[in-house]
Amino acid sequence: MDLPVNSFKRALVAGRQQIGFWNSMTSPTATEILAGSGFDWLIIDGEHAPNDVPGVLSQIHAMMENTTHPIVRIPVNDPIVFKRFLDIGTQTFLVPMVETVEQAQAAVAATRFPPHGIRGFAGAARASRYGRVANYHSRAHEELCILVQIETQQALDNIEAIAAVEGIDGLFVGPGDLSSDLGYLGDQGNPYIVELIERTLHRIVATGKPAGILTGDEALARRYMAAGSTFTAVGIDTGTLARSTEAIAKKFKA
Amino acid sequence: MDLPVNSFKRALVAGRQQIGFWNSMTSPTATEILAGSGFDWLIIDGEHAPNDVPGVLSQIHAMMENTTHPIVRIPVNDPIVFKRFLDIGTQTFLVPMVETVEQAQAAVAATRFPPHGIRGFAGAARASRYGRVANYHSRAHEELCILVQIETQQALDNIEAIAAVEGIDGLFVGPGDLSSDLGYLGDQGNPYIVELIERTLHRIVATGKPAGILTGDEALARRYMAAGSTFTAVGIDTGTLARSTEAIAKKFKA
Amino acid sequence: MDLPVNSFKRALVAGRQQIGFWNSMTSPTATEILAGSGFDWLIIDGEHAPNDVPGVLSQIHAMMENTTHPIVRIPVNDPIVFKRFLDIGTQTFLVPMVETVEQAQAAVAATRFPPHGIRGFAGAARASRYGRVANYHSRAHEELCILVQIETQQALDNIEAIAAVEGIDGLFVGPGDLSSDLGYLGDQGNPYIVELIERTLHRIVATGKPAGILTGDEALARRYMAAGSTFTAVGIDTGTLARSTEAIAKKFKA
Amino acid sequence: MDLPVNSFKRALVAGRQQIGFWNSMTSPTATEILAGSGFDWLIIDGEHAPNDVPGVLSQIHAMMENTTHPIVRIPVNDPIVFKRFLDIGTQTFLVPMVETVEQAQAAVAATRFPPHGIRGFAGAARASRYGRVANYHSRAHEELCILVQIETQQALDNIEAIAAVEGIDGLFVGPGDLSSDLGYLGDQGNPYIVELIERTLHRIVATGKPAGILTGDEALARRYMAAGSTFTAVGIDTGTLARSTEAIAKKFKA
Amino acid sequence: MDLPVNSFKRALVAGRQQIGFWNSMTSPTATEILAGSGFDWLIIDGEHAPNDVPGVLSQIHAMMENTTHPIVRIPVNDPIVFKRFLDIGTQTFLVPMVETVEQAQAAVAATRFPPHGIRGFAGAARASRYGRVANYHSRAHEELCILVQIETQQALDNIEAIAAVEGIDGLFVGPGDLSSDLGYLGDQGNPYIVELIERTLHRIVATGKPAGILTGDEALARRYMAAGSTFTAVGIDTGTLARSTEAIAKKFKA
Amino acid sequence: MDLPVNSFKRALVAGRQQIGFWNSMTSPTATEILAGSGFDWLIIDGEHAPNDVPGVLSQIHAMMENTTHPIVRIPVNDPIVFKRFLDIGTQTFLVPMVETVEQAQAAVAATRFPPHGIRGFAGAARASRYGRVANYHSRAHEELCILVQIETQQALDNIEAIAAVEGIDGLFVGPGDLSSDLGYLGDQGNPYIVELIERTLHRIVATGKPAGILTGDEALARRYMAAGSTFTAVGIDTGTLARSTEAIAKKFKA
Ligand SMILES: [Mg+2]
Ligand SMILES: [Mg+2]
Ligand SMILES: [Mg+2]
Ligand SMILES: [Mg+2]
Ligand SMILES: [Mg+2]
Ligand SMILES: [Mg+2]
Repeated sequence: MDLPVNSFKRALVAGRQQIGFWNSMTSPTATEILAGSGFDWLIIDGEHAPNDVPGVLSQIHAMMENTTHPIVRIPVNDPIVFKRFLDIGTQTFLVPMVETVEQAQAAVAATRFPPHGIRGFAGAARASRYGRVANYHSRAHEELCILVQIETQQALDNIEAIAAVEGIDGLFVGPGDLSSDLGYLGDQGNPYIVELIERTLHRIVATGKPAGILTGDEALARRYMAAGSTFTAVGIDTGTLARSTEAIAKKFKA
Repeated sequence: MDLPVNSFKRALVAGRQQIGFWNSMTSPTATEILAGSGFDWLIIDGEHAPNDVPGVLSQIHAMMENTTHPIVRIPVNDPIVFKRFLDIGTQTFLVPMVETVEQAQAAVAATRFPPHGIRGFAGAARASRYGRVANYHSRAHEELCILVQIETQQALDNIEAIAAVEGIDGLFVGPGDLSSDLGYLGDQGNPYIVELIERTLHRIVATGKPAGILTGDEALARRYMAAGSTFTAVGIDTGTLARSTEAIAKKFKA
Repeated sequence: MDLPVNSFKRALVAGRQQIGFWNSMTSPTATEILAGSGFDWLIIDGEHAPNDVPGVLSQIHAMMENTTHPIVRIPVNDPIVFKRFLDIGTQTFLVPMVETVEQAQAAVAATRFPPHGIRGFAGAARASRYGRVANYHSRAHEELCILVQIETQQALDNIEAIAAVEGIDGLFVGPGDLSSDLGYLGDQGNPYIVELIERTLHRIVATGKPAGILTGDEALARRYMAAGSTFTAVGIDTGTLARSTEAIAKKFKA
Repeated sequence: MDLPVNSFKRALVAGRQQIGFWNSMTSPTATEILAGSGFDWLIIDGEHAPNDVPGVLSQIHAMMENTTHPIVRIPVNDPIVFKRFLDIGTQTFLVPMVETVEQAQAAVAATRFPPHGIRGFAGAARASRYGRVANYHSRAHEELCILVQIETQQALDNIEAIAAVEGIDGLFVGPGDLSSDLGYLGDQGNPYIVELIERTLHRIVATGKPAGILTGDEALARRYMAAGSTFTAVGIDTGTLARSTEAIAKKFKA
Repeated sequence: MDLPVNSFKRALVAGRQQIGFWNSMTSPTATEILAGSGFDWLIIDGEHAPNDVPGVLSQIHAMMENTTHPIVRIPVNDPIVFKRFLDIGTQTFLVPMVETVEQAQAAVAATRFPPHGIRGFAGAARASRYGRVANYHSRAHEELCILVQIETQQALDNIEAIAAVEGIDGLFVGPGDLSSDLGYLGDQGNPYIVELIERTLHRIVATGKPAGILTGDEALARRYMAAGSTFTAVGIDTGTLARSTEAIAKKFKA
Repeated sequence: MDLPVNSFKRALVAGRQQIGFWNSMTSPTATEILAGSGFDWLIIDGEHAPNDVPGVLSQIHAMMENTTHPIVRIPVNDPIVFKRFLDIGTQTFLVPMVETVEQAQAAVAATRFPPHGIRGFAGAARASRYGRVANYHSRAHEELCILVQIETQQALDNIEAIAAVEGIDGLFVGPGDLSSDLGYLGDQGNPYIVELIERTLHRIVATGKPAGILTGDEALARRYMAAGSTFTAVGIDTGTLARSTEAIAKKFKA
């Protein structure tokens, strides 16, 4: 068989807005529901949700009926962690806390075989569909997509340099940690933060690399898309289920 | 320790409206979210969701921080099935397809020790908190609550007789199967069905036993509460997550 | 979305040979491997492998990248068991030990909503993709496929009558139990049995309903296809992994 | 390979006292601990503990380092349930609530292939070690051991007849349900019950079939062994862990 | 809702003896049993038991009926590991191998949001009950409790300095590794070690921070409490189940 | 009980060829099948297969009926990872990417208690069979076996020095990564690589330490054994299942 196409990466390159959603429920049924809701991509969150490699594989399986693209957020920019998620067939990664060129280069290197990187060789893992993908090892990088999170002052300082790293396919602004790092803990909607994010998105777009973000606030999402975000996550499953059911309960319990 | 109190049963007896929700996600995280949303009870659905006994136990565990009461819907009115869910500590049951007095009596008998029934004896199961509940076996029935589903013409015919069975604590109208049995498959909002359900709720209330129902339609829920439903489920988690995320996606993808 | 098409059922109706394989490993990774091997269908065996409903769902998920069609063999012809596998989206069933017209009718009835059967109503289960399939309840039967196992003398006696039951989509000869029932326990390759199976396949084909079988012996498989089998399982994963690795070990350990 | 020997069955036939323990924790680690404690057998309890077939298999796996023999208590005397536990390699069964000759015969028949019974044929299940045990199907019964629970007045009435059923390898007195059935719910230590049990053990021994029982009380255990019990379970893991840790806590919290 | 109160931390501050137990069984049922035994706290051991984040969450769920406080021992003092256990709602941590002020500071920093530390921001994780805890991010630290293990000569050398680190809430003497590091491998009861531990506990108490320890020996536990231990673990579940069942078996098999 | 003997280590020391197989399916049933196929050892692959500690334990359990020796390949040469797999009873480790003497020393040190290393102390883990193995801590190293992977140019440069590290029990040539590192990505059968591997095996043997390798090609395996490999893995389960079922499908679908 041929190497599976990364529809998300191609859309990013083509500049088509890709609407995403955060999947933190750690439940294949929740993942399957979200995969059919109409989003272009889902984040299976390995950083802030209790997901391990076997569970993420179950959730990737649960998405295969739909065309929604799975993106794995790994807990840390570590080549061992990359290796394990690459082997189960992850094609798109969201990498937290990339603050320097060296960290961005390390993320890319973790996903490439030598001489372009340090990825370890596996013969019959799921990534190559158990050995079925022709020329997997020489072609894998073509359909990989590495997105890095810009979420500190230091990262802001280095945006252009990070964006220039070959193999970085997009820069994602992390509003929660960015606010926290800048002294606005938990106040992501503060006008100072919102305007800073808009300027940041503009700066990313100016580098020629795609910019992305997450916000559950529709108005903000539209502002950020207007500012250049082309991979825009518009909510999170745990929050949506919690808020929507609280609202239902409140209607009847008030 | 003392036998855990069944807050739901006591509220039903006291005639206080109990608002519930359907939990079909088979995910302890989803259950924990719902348990904190403000509902009085949740159905952990062992009939139409892929739940088995070990998984239901995990979900019961996930509810223990909150006061929301867990109710298990079993897949079938069978004493072996009752036995297994009783042993893990289930206190309230929703029993599908109870159409006759004999079936209602069988459901009750499955939950009582001899000579009042046929429940099997376990010494140190979770129901008695591994042997910690004093006088568990002689007192267990005090905090059990048996709710039966009225969902066919035959069940309608026998409502008063079913309600008169000792140990039946409530009658729940199942709109989906009732519509289906009466020739209105998938048309639960048909005025004929809605009015029939209202009359049925009135009939149940007239027997002196509590009446309940499930509907995800707020207006209908209010009509049914007006008609006497005092344990009223107002939605289902899979549907709520699906519909709410479809709406979000649509806003951005339109 | 539209009701998912049952490619297997359509191929059977069109008379196209469908090659299948038995999946007993109870491992989503094994299932994913088999789903990509080139077979038209897989049996996820809920009868003789330690599979429960949640595990079968994981395996169905693992097949969704491929066009191989999942068939669930249920452990027993019981409407409660049917209900649970229907709700997770099973479209094709293999039903063990169908010996009479009444049993065949019961199998069909378990899969149809009233008035054509007794299937219970679920609003937002996986079968309807959590409520997304338009007109699911009125159309579900169109893409269901009920295959019954002919595996005793009594079943042989009733083949034509069973085949005539509306809703029975194919008859599968079970060589293991048939041999056992006829006094040839474990001797499925006995010429008497092989010839009987050939005659049985002819009889089934003569009824106008498709015939199927399982054999891990290539020569027998070809004989049975010649005799009319059009859904032909040609091996089993546990046996294939065991025999092929034993052969490898033997080469080096001899 | 040869058919695995059932050491427990051989010891019973030889009249050697076999000391057992109840395993209800549903945890392979707990099972592995118990398997190394020095008991001759463990009950993996599928009746009153939340165990399903896949979980029981994990627990059987966890016992394989030791010579302790696994016995599965099934939830109900049903051939479908027997079939599934037989296929994963269970050799010794404890069958609840056998009250009549017909029920005892049904239990035996569920475990034998035709013409001696109705067990279904599986080619490469764990029972035959995935097809490795030579002549599995013709020899399986040699190492099976069927123990039935005597736990009601009706069962007491039929002891001699039940014991005479060919294929019944032992009769186990169930003190909990027997007490309950006779009007002594939860009072298993009542002298009336204890003496009745002693007489019952004598009656069983007089039939020539082995007798067994469970009691966590050492003095009772010794009385029952004196009365003829040769497969004697002397405690239950959940209770032992609960009582021993309560005692520890009490020493320090008093 | 309000931030859940950390009863253990408050008791430590108030100087009330807190009796604990080690939970290594990796089984929610074992955890639930222990949580009801009367201990003030349990260690869910992520260092020396095969526990991962999803399994620890299941065990935390299983403790919610009781007031016993869950403490997670993490496998390593690493901010990524802290992050994941914080997100599932862990409030009290036991951190192995803290030997220097810098390591103690790093542990604290891993649990605080900027500018007080480097904890990553999550919007709707379990820690904030899926977004329900008001002001979670600004208040989380109030109910966190960081306990560090003193278990080498180097750690002994630095006790006063480690205790002085802001945010360190207690110092736990690890007898196994301490003995090992000092040349008494496996000899935790050696008088030299016992007296050293007593002196160490005195030194810790003298710093004003609480001292704790684990020992399964009652006499030693009382000596250590006399020497100042106020969070004292008095046993381990795997050992207790093993030793108590070995003793039972021995009584009957001798 | 006595410390379990490491049959594999003893055979290596005795110079007896040990034939192995790769187990990547992450399924206890697959592991049990392979454990009975006749191999001397299996690799449970924690590096390139989605295995975590709890799952590896389940697979070790599934091997205990057979004499096949389990070897765990860990994902990274990290003492925390070693600690966790040691605690579940792993005796033989395959350590990826050991390129220097320091790395080899670190691997050994991670497995030894002080003063010979830095392994952490656990009192009642599975490694000591929950406290049952006499003198576990002082004797554990006797039955440990540390195998390191030689898979880069740097590792080749250091073979003799790595082999001289005390506690290194064998050197395993990793053909996939070695080819990749030397510029022959995915071309493990290239004559240059094959001959280099032969020379490398000779060099390892000349150091006096055993040499090992993995290849699914029978002819190569025989060449490598001729060149001195004495622990030779001859295939991988996922690949074997995929290739053998593809071949079966092709026979019938061609
Ligand atoms: Mg972040
Ligand atoms: Mg219904
Ligand atoms: Mg059959
Ligand atoms: Mg009983
Ligand atoms: Mg330690
Ligand atoms: Mg490698």
